[in-house]
Amino acid sequence: MDGLGGLPVEPGGPTELEAAHTPHMDRLAAEGTCGLSIPIARGVAPGSGPAHLALFGYDPLKYEIGRGMLECIGIGMDIGPKDVAIRGNFCTVDANGVITDRRAGRIPTEKCAELVAKLRAIEIPPYEITVEPVKEYRFGVVIRGEGLSGDIDDTDPQVTGKAPLPAVPRSPAAQKTADLVNEWIARVAAILKDEHPANMVTLRGFSMDPSLPKYADVYRLKAACVAVYPMYKGVSQLVGMDVIETDPHDAPADEFKRVMQQFEAGYDFVFCHIKYTDSRGEDGDFAAKAKVIESVDAALPVLLGETGPDVIVITGDHSTPAKYKAHSWHPVPLLLWAPETHMPDRATAFGERECMGGGLGHFPATDIMPLALAHANRMNKFGA
Amino acid sequence: MDGLGGLPVEPGGPTELEAAHTPHMDRLAAEGTCGLSIPIARGVAPGSGPAHLALFGYDPLKYEIGRGMLECIGIGMDIGPKDVAIRGNFCTVDANGVITDRRAGRIPTEKCAELVAKLRAIEIPPYEITVEPVKEYRFGVVIRGEGLSGDIDDTDPQVTGKAPLPAVPRSPAAQKTADLVNEWIARVAAILKDEHPANMVTLRGFSMDPSLPKYADVYRLKAACVAVYPMYKGVSQLVGMDVIETDPHDAPADEFKRVMQQFEAGYDFVFCHIKYTDSRGEDGDFAAKAKVIESVDAALPVLLGETGPDVIVITGDHSTPAKYKAHSWHPVPLLLWAPETHMPDRATAFGERECMGGGLGHFPATDIMPLALAHANRMNKFGA
Repeated sequence: MDGLGGLPVEPGGPTELEAAHTPHMDRLAAEGTCGLSIPIARGVAPGSGPAHLALFGYDPLKYEIGRGMLECIGIGMDIGPKDVAIRGNFCTVDANGVITDRRAGRIPTEKCAELVAKLRAIEIPPYEITVEPVKEYRFGVVIRGEGLSGDIDDTDPQVTGKAPLPAVPRSPAAQKTADLVNEWIARVAAILKDEHPANMVTLRGFSMDPSLPKYADVYRLKAACVAVYPMYKGVSQLVGMDVIETDPHDAPADEFKRVMQQFEAGYDFVFCHIKYTDSRGEDGDFAAKAKVIESVDAALPVLLGETGPDVIVITGDHSTPAKYKAHSWHPVPLLLWAPETHMPDRATAFGERECMGGGLGHFPATDIMPLALAHANRMNKFGA
Repeated sequence: MDGLGGLPVEPGGPTELEAAHTPHMDRLAAEGTCGLSIPIARGVAPGSGPAHLALFGYDPLKYEIGRGMLECIGIGMDIGPKDVAIRGNFCTVDANGVITDRRAGRIPTEKCAELVAKLRAIEIPPYEITVEPVKEYRFGVVIRGEGLSGDIDDTDPQVTGKAPLPAVPRSPAAQKTADLVNEWIARVAAILKDEHPANMVTLRGFSMDPSLPKYADVYRLKAACVAVYPMYKGVSQLVGMDVIETDPHDAPADEFKRVMQQFEAGYDFVFCHIKYTDSRGEDGDFAAKAKVIESVDAALPVLLGETGPDVIVITGDHSTPAKYKAHSWHPVPLLLWAPETHMPDRATAFGERECMGGGLGHFPATDIMPLALAHANRMNKFGA
């Protein structure tokens, strides 16, 4: 459950998870082991990219998914291993080409889509250039071809009163890509010159597939991802999970049915992502976030049958307290349920305060996968 | 509170902190979040230098304040960035110059001061050499001048039956300093030759300012230190805090008033050090240590007004259980109080046992500063 962790709104009151009526999770908590997971480091609120890397067991300080990559993944763009992904902003420049508004007056998303459609006319063979609108003034660009590099500085000068910078390579290997990008920008400028306020673009976060080690190699797992939002599908794909087709209207019970189908199809690990806990937290809607948690709990029996998984981990990538309307640094409640193999503790319900004193303690999110594997009897003894 | 952590003297009894009547801290603990801080590593009792570095957020295994530096800082000697600081011992040598007592019969401090006064007669221009008594046979030396180095081996052979070693440079850059030190030792020997038992010296812990990163750069904080003892002022200064003038007779309430004055003067972080918890612990006086804690609690309302700080952290640099009469490895109770931003836990009072199950868990002392900054909303999100 994305952004699962929460905070009380009233001193001494319950968190979202504590307020939610969750009989199934409470039973699993009572039977299993609880703890608090620390996504990145104490005091650090994570973005979704690093938080998911940590959840998947990859040190987010060592492995990094570039900003362009994350943006393009987030809108479901198809990105191959040799492609360069870029975040684009429409901006406003004056007659001298100097930026007067870095966000082009925050044009509506529809306008963005309309302008992006015009930019698709640009062809620079043999490269394949895909452009997609994101939101308001933001768009994504993916360039496909041989010998490309993401080692290029942002063209956004970060301040108004300066012209957009040219794409400058940070290494000789990126010269060709920089030339190509500068050619594209020049043709964009020609197309946009009579538009207002979005008459120019800046490009940021040039990046490529980070070549993360894959689940099959790291964990010997045949892994699948059941998620509705493109961002989480994308990050799962980067670690080698097979992304299962879902419907945008999937409720938790629908997602759980898909999870069960994957186990039946021979997958031995399924990552299932529930988005709306985070969304309602970002909205600042405590009651609605608690309701999402309740809907997940109500659907949980789908996973708890005879053919259900041997190990279930219920947690979040980070906290999104409704009180904050944002990601926060607070550690995330986690419950690990594995009949036969777990160490029981005194937690009798699933909630932040119960997890504080749980049997797993407070631990880095990167330890979740080793713990889950151990509880599935899939870890070897270390040493003789 | 230096050496805050304690132990019961009777099995099942309270610790010093648990025995003390602390209504204000108990309220803050009930409202805030508790935990146990591990100064260096589990099982390791820290000295004051590394314990304070950890408290300030500097990995004490990476950053080191030399022993000479700590000794000279501890008695308030003025040490500049190019100076070499050294710990000196008076010792006894026989007619052949062989050490018969490495501590010169633990001469009284007054005798030490008298001998140090004689050593001040030594002048080796253009260098400025300052000598100050510490305690019994121990003294401090600071050498000021250009091109000095602390990269010199101890002259103390660590055993009786051997002569003091010459000062030997560990690198060519330290040759000049070693020559200077050997010249000084020769002249010391001449001055002391008719003294008894303190007729010679050994020098140890040659060191210079460790050039620690500064609070303004690491944390973007304008930081001040309110402490009465020179050692803590010195370490605070090394991390870039401004050291506020105090009176040796300052009670906790006086120190807290100075803290409030610094916030009014524009500081956004104040480190306030209370010495006597540690002193009474070292004395083995359980009741007196509890009384010091009570005096701190009684003064606490000075900090709790409308204009008080947004975040308060109450903890110690290490434990000094009266039962041990010494620094110990036990983790240190910590309470973090920050209206609005903290995660409440089940602790209802400030004490070791309440902190064990607290919402902050058991964590390295180096995480205290990131946690405090997060609770003041001063940390950026990590990644997108």
